[in-house]
Amino acid sequence: MIDKKILQALLKKVETPFYVYDAQIIRENCSKLKNAFSKYYPDTEIHYAVKANNCPEVLRIIKNAGLGVDCSSPFELLISQKTGFKRSAIMYTGNYESPEDLDFALKYAGLINLDDISSFYRIKDLSLPEIVSFRINPGIGKGGFEGITTGGVDAKFGIPYEKALEAYKTAFRSGARRFGIHMMTGSNNLEPLYFAETTDKLMHIAGSIFSSLGVTPEYIDIGGGFGIPYTDDEVPLDIERTAELVCERFKANCSKFKFGNPVLRIEPGRYITGNAGVLVTKVTGKKESYRNYTGVDAGMNTLIRPALYNAFHRMETPFKKRTGHLKTDVCGRICENSDIFCRNIPLPLLDEGDIIVFRDSGAYGSTMSSNYNGRPRPGEIVTDSGKIIYLKERERLEKMVALHYEQDEQKP
Amino acid sequence: MIDKKILQALLKKVETPFYVYDAQIIRENCSKLKNAFSKYYPDTEIHYAVKANNCPEVLRIIKNAGLGVDCSSPFELLISQKTGFKRSAIMYTGNYESPEDLDFALKYAGLINLDDISSFYRIKDLSLPEIVSFRINPGIGKGGFEGITTGGVDAKFGIPYEKALEAYKTAFRSGARRFGIHMMTGSNNLEPLYFAETTDKLMHIAGSIFSSLGVTPEYIDIGGGFGIPYTDDEVPLDIERTAELVCERFKANCSKFKFGNPVLRIEPGRYITGNAGVLVTKVTGKKESYRNYTGVDAGMNTLIRPALYNAFHRMETPFKKRTGHLKTDVCGRICENSDIFCRNIPLPLLDEGDIIVFRDSGAYGSTMSSNYNGRPRPGEIVTDSGKIIYLKERERLEKMVALHYEQDEQKP
Repeated sequence: MIDKKILQALLKKVETPFYVYDAQIIRENCSKLKNAFSKYYPDTEIHYAVKANNCPEVLRIIKNAGLGVDCSSPFELLISQKTGFKRSAIMYTGNYESPEDLDFALKYAGLINLDDISSFYRIKDLSLPEIVSFRINPGIGKGGFEGITTGGVDAKFGIPYEKALEAYKTAFRSGARRFGIHMMTGSNNLEPLYFAETTDKLMHIAGSIFSSLGVTPEYIDIGGGFGIPYTDDEVPLDIERTAELVCERFKANCSKFKFGNPVLRIEPGRYITGNAGVLVTKVTGKKESYRNYTGVDAGMNTLIRPALYNAFHRMETPFKKRTGHLKTDVCGRICENSDIFCRNIPLPLLDEGDIIVFRDSGAYGSTMSSNYNGRPRPGEIVTDSGKIIYLKERERLEKMVALHYEQDEQKP
Repeated sequence: MIDKKILQALLKKVETPFYVYDAQIIRENCSKLKNAFSKYYPDTEIHYAVKANNCPEVLRIIKNAGLGVDCSSPFELLISQKTGFKRSAIMYTGNYESPEDLDFALKYAGLINLDDISSFYRIKDLSLPEIVSFRINPGIGKGGFEGITTGGVDAKFGIPYEKALEAYKTAFRSGARRFGIHMMTGSNNLEPLYFAETTDKLMHIAGSIFSSLGVTPEYIDIGGGFGIPYTDDEVPLDIERTAELVCERFKANCSKFKFGNPVLRIEPGRYITGNAGVLVTKVTGKKESYRNYTGVDAGMNTLIRPALYNAFHRMETPFKKRTGHLKTDVCGRICENSDIFCRNIPLPLLDEGDIIVFRDSGAYGSTMSSNYNGRPRPGEIVTDSGKIIYLKERERLEKMVALHYEQDEQKP
């Protein structure tokens, strides 16, 4: 829950809607992961998935917590470097990478996970990476929703494990001698055993590949997917137990396949920033139609997860007590019916101008926002121990208009 | 189909992905609608829905074709005014409008459709609009997908028709003497009869309201929803027949309820720009996994309709003949499995660097784009009779980085 005093101060300073991220929670999440994994396998390295939240101050906090980054585009590489991440801490994991993508990856990332054998051919034309790592599709995958299930027979990602050996052999024949291996099978999982089982599967694939090649991998990257609860019914991921189970399988397989001590890499995004962020909105209208509606100034343009995945975000009304509540749908102002955050939720009786805070909005919120219906993108604020340490305002209309016409006078 | 010579010239000038809009087709679509409706009811006025495509040059073409606009936000009002639309040609139709929204609407729009009785209370606190018009939910609605069905018992829009009279009475008691009435029940419909039947329903609602009030409406706005085919199987909307049927019911009801000759307003968006635009993409990678994949440099960040609505866009490969084809999924480079344009589509055998053009992308394409995964938003180009008349390049990385850090040094 966001501190009321801070929220009041912010509401005086900035226009809604805006995201607020809590630096302390981000640091705690980093520590929880680091401590859990380093306890069971000290050679674990954590790469934060920048796509979840790329606010400059958030990246600085994560860097200072000792994590690296995982990037998915040239822009994410550029801002990671600008934040001060060392090349060796910057990883690039793309898919269907263009030559431009791979060129940026070679320049800015110390570690590159290639999505396919065709990616290897493309990158080899530019330069052979120091370490060759392929993303493997282990044939299984699970995510909180279909759209975020990134392994298995319907996933566009990675090399099917049956074809992986051939990819590594090709790289070897091209002169590669240092190797890694990678997977990312799904997002927002809450079951410790899921991570252990997919790790086990990847290790067996790695065992078969690297024993055939007669080399050992320098790192094994089991991806991210560490989930957070979005409802009261969900049990938070037991990260200690996850680390214990994963590392147990990891070490047993390292010993079985004589891998020595390769680096174990993980790529959390949501787990680091998801519950550290809230989206602050103002009620702009209430309607009694065939259903009750409470309209707010955020919409699918601000937070698209409900419209896109049918995801749910719990709400809080910090300045209204939960008495005399009303069952209501909550929606934005976008001109389509996808723009509904939730249906039939009990909320206190609210007035126009009252505040609704959407919880767990620190991941895949602002980075997915758009200007749909001509709406400005939201502000982003970072607080630390009750102080505002970073403040980016909502896009200004005049600026949006100026940018819209920027190339208008350009002669084609 | 986009002209090959123009496409070749563009590919030398600008980076993919980009949208190309054809001015001739936009003008033809404007004419088709204008001619059809003015033939059967000369007092028809057409307001283009800016949210579909807000490219400055597109707006100029539409203005020069004699249409007005329908806006859904302060930004859309500002750019409509800047394009040169007169106040009387600018309409505002919002929902859960904030006081800021209504303030802009009063300033820039000659016509305002209010979404609810509560909207009336809000706007009255600022100023009584010259004409009071409410959006009615006639209790029925239909759209190409659930998310774009904007009338009926599950829609967040408008006043339920049973409550509409009370809203108008309230406005009358507050001094309003000039009235309009509005509905918008769904997007992308292809059945002429649908428009006639919903018009009939709205007219009966209007008849009951205005006879009770003892006034006549100055305009009746039946909304948009004029669809376009996205597949070869769909039959294009017969706009001549639609206009005939709509105007027949409109005139019969005007006479029945003694409305005289109110203005008939319609608000097409997709119908004007949808089939006038294409999205030009380059193949960045091909993969044989558990399925075949063809990856392109556009993604759900560029054109979100497939990910959001499971919508389909036909593809063309202007520089490859349809021989030796392959059944393939087509996807973007975004790191989630929602980023798939279509599954199992026959395409010619393509190489990396080959061009795929997505058809019918002129509406709800660029205006819904985002920077997800840190990807630049696409360029927009307008051509006219084989010439490039407007060219806005893809967002530049350096500029994106600069904007990202713009408020970084600001002391909070």
